[in-house]
Amino acid sequence: MLYGKPVAEALDARTRAQVEELAVQGVAPTLAIIRVGEDPSDMTYERSVVKRAASLGMVTACYDLPELATTREVSTIIDDVNANPDIHGCLLFRPLPEHMDEGFLCDRLVPEKDVDGIGHKSLTGVFTGAHHGFPPATARACVELLDHYDIAIEGAHATVVGRSLVIGLPVAQLLLHRHATITQCHSRTADLARHMKAADIVICASGRARAYGADHFRDDRAQVVLDVGINFDAAGTLCGDVDLDAVEPQVRAITPVPRGIGSVTTSVILMHTAQAAARFSS
Amino acid sequence: MLYGKPVAEALDARTRAQVEELAVQGVAPTLAIIRVGEDPSDMTYERSVVKRAASLGMVTACYDLPELATTREVSTIIDDVNANPDIHGCLLFRPLPEHMDEGFLCDRLVPEKDVDGIGHKSLTGVFTGAHHGFPPATARACVELLDHYDIAIEGAHATVVGRSLVIGLPVAQLLLHRHATITQCHSRTADLARHMKAADIVICASGRARAYGADHFRDDRAQVVLDVGINFDAAGTLCGDVDLDAVEPQVRAITPVPRGIGSVTTSVILMHTAQAAARFSS
Repeated sequence: MLYGKPVAEALDARTRAQVEELAVQGVAPTLAIIRVGEDPSDMTYERSVVKRAASLGMVTACYDLPELATTREVSTIIDDVNANPDIHGCLLFRPLPEHMDEGFLCDRLVPEKDVDGIGHKSLTGVFTGAHHGFPPATARACVELLDHYDIAIEGAHATVVGRSLVIGLPVAQLLLHRHATITQCHSRTADLARHMKAADIVICASGRARAYGADHFRDDRAQVVLDVGINFDAAGTLCGDVDLDAVEPQVRAITPVPRGIGSVTTSVILMHTAQAAARFSS
Repeated sequence: MLYGKPVAEALDARTRAQVEELAVQGVAPTLAIIRVGEDPSDMTYERSVVKRAASLGMVTACYDLPELATTREVSTIIDDVNANPDIHGCLLFRPLPEHMDEGFLCDRLVPEKDVDGIGHKSLTGVFTGAHHGFPPATARACVELLDHYDIAIEGAHATVVGRSLVIGLPVAQLLLHRHATITQCHSRTADLARHMKAADIVICASGRARAYGADHFRDDRAQVVLDVGINFDAAGTLCGDVDLDAVEPQVRAITPVPRGIGSVTTSVILMHTAQAAARFSS
């Protein structure tokens, strides 16, 4: 079972060391968090980020806006974040309320502070290999988890199920840059199970609760499965895209949900923020 | 045999109709061509573009610079092209001489006039599906050829060999937007033949002369092969990435080199230029 916690701890140790180096230079890596509305899971997550940042010696600045805030109000805050030399990274909770122009706001943030890779410029960096901006944190979390558990990426065949800009497309590109062979599947893929069974590494990022079971994987205990889904089943229980109980016995390794990839994402956002601060101060 | 000429003719007919519509509005779609140095194949190609454009009622403006021109000189021309409302598209011959900053110059061109998809903003459009700029012409040519010959893209499994920003990556993304399942292979892919044999459509864009032979394809006459390679063999003969004579008998259809995809690319550049003019004048 590929738990996220040891990966997060290893990343946090690296980040803490970088924060300490920056402290010598008088720089305190600072993350702005912009939340619109009072979604309970956003609020829980915000508290956990603030707490984790503090434990690493980092600063957070929380901008909490009412549900009825305007695009212009959020835009003004992003402009302030862009202009403020003491803020190095920015996390914008999404989805934003429907009345807002989310695409416009994502692109408003400068790529140097876009630690969750939400803007087009950051995504371009992911696709072209150019090093401006940062990749989406969950995509990077998948790569960090594979590296942590010494799962070879170069030369491996990775099938990615899902093609969203948040995770499916960028994680495929990150693995491609690391010289994996990539198969990108999606809701209109014919014979999905064939593509999933063919791979060494399968990344499930389609957001369909427990949609992939024993029939979607080989039973030779050779495949590595990363489950990026965060879904709630009919009973309201948090679960991934994979039917964990059914699949775990037949594969080499699998990330659970919860306690898998999700636990790594926060560490990646904080790592990116420290890196942004280091780039800024150098 | 999937010849390019009928595809080019069909595209040209559509472009000619659009040019005639624009003429009514007093707009003459105009393509700037920037060539540095006197590479004979660039010069031959430039003449063919100028002639084809004229045959469609379009205007070309050729900027020919000496091999020793500076990045700044080319940049100034691109700035003029960007600012000139009578120029709608721009083709920049590459590779540029080594002393030039090619990446900088590609990004200098505004995406609205980037009819060969060389800038990062154009590539971002390809990846995100946003409709600013244009995809690289050869990538679009592959899709146009498949459509012309009624080869289904949605639901098909396409293996792309090669991951360059010029063709391999963008053609995979264009097919993905059309709901194909994509496998992206490259020089470090293990068991390349397996991935090629598994596909309904194989696009070879690795630039290796006749590298893929009978062993790389199934022999059930079911696969469609697009050969994007433009190589010269040891004897100096123009050839593709595929060993055409060996592979043709065992597949459903294949593009030859020459007279395949290459013949379509010029038509796509002119089509993009007419589209750019139409967007500009609307």
